[in-house]
Amino acid sequence: MKPSIPKGTRDFLPAQVYKRNFIFDTIRSVFKKYGYQPIETPTMELLSTLTGKYGEEGDKLLFKVLNNGEFLDDVDDQLLAAKDHKKILPEISKRGLRYDLTVPFARYVVMHQNDIKFPFKRYHIQPVWRADRPQKGRYQEFYQCDVDVVGSDSLMYEAELTKILDEALHKLNVKSIIKINNRKILFGLAEAMGITDNFMDMTMAIDKLDKIGREKVILEMTKRSIPASAAEGVLDLLSIDNLGDLESKFQNCPQGLKGIEELKEFHAYLDLTTSFNKIKFDISLARGLNYYTGCIFEVEADKEFYPTLKMGSIAGGGRYDNLTGVFGLKDVSGVGVSFGAERIYDVMEEEDLFPIGVEKDLDVLLIAFDDATHKYSFQVLQTLRGMNIVADLYPTPTKMKKQMKYADARNVPYVLLIGSEEMESGVLSLKNMVNGEQSKLSIEEIAKKLATV
Amino acid sequence: MKPSIPKGTRDFLPAQVYKRNFIFDTIRSVFKKYGYQPIETPTMELLSTLTGKYGEEGDKLLFKVLNNGEFLDDVDDQLLAAKDHKKILPEISKRGLRYDLTVPFARYVVMHQNDIKFPFKRYHIQPVWRADRPQKGRYQEFYQCDVDVVGSDSLMYEAELTKILDEALHKLNVKSIIKINNRKILFGLAEAMGITDNFMDMTMAIDKLDKIGREKVILEMTKRSIPASAAEGVLDLLSIDNLGDLESKFQNCPQGLKGIEELKEFHAYLDLTTSFNKIKFDISLARGLNYYTGCIFEVEADKEFYPTLKMGSIAGGGRYDNLTGVFGLKDVSGVGVSFGAERIYDVMEEEDLFPIGVEKDLDVLLIAFDDATHKYSFQVLQTLRGMNIVADLYPTPTKMKKQMKYADARNVPYVLLIGSEEMESGVLSLKNMVNGEQSKLSIEEIAKKLATV
Repeated sequence: MKPSIPKGTRDFLPAQVYKRNFIFDTIRSVFKKYGYQPIETPTMELLSTLTGKYGEEGDKLLFKVLNNGEFLDDVDDQLLAAKDHKKILPEISKRGLRYDLTVPFARYVVMHQNDIKFPFKRYHIQPVWRADRPQKGRYQEFYQCDVDVVGSDSLMYEAELTKILDEALHKLNVKSIIKINNRKILFGLAEAMGITDNFMDMTMAIDKLDKIGREKVILEMTKRSIPASAAEGVLDLLSIDNLGDLESKFQNCPQGLKGIEELKEFHAYLDLTTSFNKIKFDISLARGLNYYTGCIFEVEADKEFYPTLKMGSIAGGGRYDNLTGVFGLKDVSGVGVSFGAERIYDVMEEEDLFPIGVEKDLDVLLIAFDDATHKYSFQVLQTLRGMNIVADLYPTPTKMKKQMKYADARNVPYVLLIGSEEMESGVLSLKNMVNGEQSKLSIEEIAKKLATV
Repeated sequence: MKPSIPKGTRDFLPAQVYKRNFIFDTIRSVFKKYGYQPIETPTMELLSTLTGKYGEEGDKLLFKVLNNGEFLDDVDDQLLAAKDHKKILPEISKRGLRYDLTVPFARYVVMHQNDIKFPFKRYHIQPVWRADRPQKGRYQEFYQCDVDVVGSDSLMYEAELTKILDEALHKLNVKSIIKINNRKILFGLAEAMGITDNFMDMTMAIDKLDKIGREKVILEMTKRSIPASAAEGVLDLLSIDNLGDLESKFQNCPQGLKGIEELKEFHAYLDLTTSFNKIKFDISLARGLNYYTGCIFEVEADKEFYPTLKMGSIAGGGRYDNLTGVFGLKDVSGVGVSFGAERIYDVMEEEDLFPIGVEKDLDVLLIAFDDATHKYSFQVLQTLRGMNIVADLYPTPTKMKKQMKYADARNVPYVLLIGSEEMESGVLSLKNMVNGEQSKLSIEEIAKKLATV
């Protein structure tokens, strides 16, 4: 039997784990520095928690876990005979795999509202599972990296999250464009044109502006029964790139004005700081998700630096006014962003952005020539490790060629050759694997040299 | 609807995540220093990989994931009508949750045998799932921390793994006893008494020696049809505490002699080093698991230091000669140990062994008094973060009492008070939350002071 793994899932080789951890560790270090606290939630949630939160399509993509034991015993015979999946499912499965980190977070905040202090600043880095059809860059198990603050509507957090996006992507060496908008300004467009009933139709069309252009966006809107004149008007407003000019058009649009006020307050914080990446106010930024109510964010790799890259957004987020309402806790406003770690990995791999040495693990490999020097080498090995050098010893004093081949495979920068002469003198031969240079050094000198590798 | 989570699973609050990560990070840092490389495997494995590897009881404890879509469509009507679970299960579920890290590792080594270089030294820290009845200290989702080397039978690795156990537990501040035996020596006992056919019966009885004492162990053996004289003989041999004396009893016991030879070679490496914890050769150490073929390890918290602690083994492992055989790759010898991170957590919590400050996240909380100082404070905040200080700012310039309450809840050692005077002068008031002392300092001075907190 040839072993395999489920389609859409992945094993990770050490080199991949190093690179993935570089991304997670970098993002995590920024979250921590900004005062966010880690939480973790179980892999399995009750289906009663998950179902109905992701739309009908999402419900289908949930992985359901079979109840243990004789799972069919209590199922009605007629339902079984009819193969009535909808009614049988809740009888045989009570748990599902986490589909995202947002719903578990909402559930968590409600369950632990007395253990946490608001504003609650948390980050959450764990895998999620979706039964999507696997394809290039899309997996059934993948990590999400979410950072949110709930229990405050201060716009300081919008500025803080912008800084987090900016700093984390800078540390990852990914040149980015951080686009910012406010849902209320989008609503202002609908107010100005008298089409607030068609707000969702309008945003869905606007969302495609980059891809399909002005004329087709107008066509999309008219197809969804928005009058042509209103559609034209929306596109005209979208072409305004000065907040003051937009404000003058919003005199009778309370939501639009509120949106502009929020953006100004947000900017009052943000402009006090410097940034690494481009930060752009983009009035046409819509983001599909319904639950955003204020500021929205979307980040792309900067095409100016990566002209051949084909990649959608690598991070995004926004403010939501009622995350926990569905679990019975009202009026908890929150704002957060999520890093698409898997896409960031693909960008970094494709554009060769990982730092040199990210895959390096061994500082030095010890090589011995007979049983006595091998045991002595084990002692040297432990001494080096005691000095925090990542050292290893080939397991047997076999042919030098074989040991050197292993050193190559482990990609080690130095080998330490230990024969009987070295054992007697305590002066060992350190060989640089890149240029072949060999030097005779004491253990202390070796440790000092390797500490700077 | 009051939200909840599946029984046997856990949410982790920030303080718990900090403590858990302290354990994982400490263990991981030792694995890395010893030249082991990280791998990761998918949460879901094919049931064909998992089933039959953990015994009949284990198969029942596997969590099975329901196939997506119309999972019943291809199931035979008669099987359904008969509720024939055994035959229906493989029709409706092809995937299960990882039950341990050993079987996925074996599967991984076989699948990636051409991508990895032997000896392959790997560590693997991920959660596993078992549908055990939840009880105190036993969960349905828990982490395992495994470290193994495969593809070499050098006894250097037995010594190395002993050092890893010793160093990791020392760094965790858990005083421990590392017990060591060799399965071949146990087999030697059976050889010496002519009861090799009853080897498993013998080891299962010996395993209980600590708990039930000599007489009851003999009774257990005779119950399992081992002659009383042989049982007595085994117990007499067990009381020998000198390897030389044992060797003289093993003159006609090839496996027993091989076991002694292996232990001597192992000791030749180990004795060259110093250790932090007690390391004891314990001839009665058996460990239940069948697949060990050479050296075996078991670690307990040292009762001399923790007299009231009730806790089983906190780590264990051994050598296995044929891990990958079941997946078609023969003759791959391996040796490894596994840290019981959840039990280590319980020991550390109960005996108060976590380092001071393990839960600390914030270095300082900034407190502003009006809108202008709040925006200025955000600038100071970003400056401090730029200097790698973990700083935070209360989201609004609300009443000082409320902000101080938040500082208390976040357990922060310092607050930085920023009024209009401070804003003008750039000299800020840093208040020590423990002793109440207040000092006037520049941002640079503050950063310097906090860097040493």
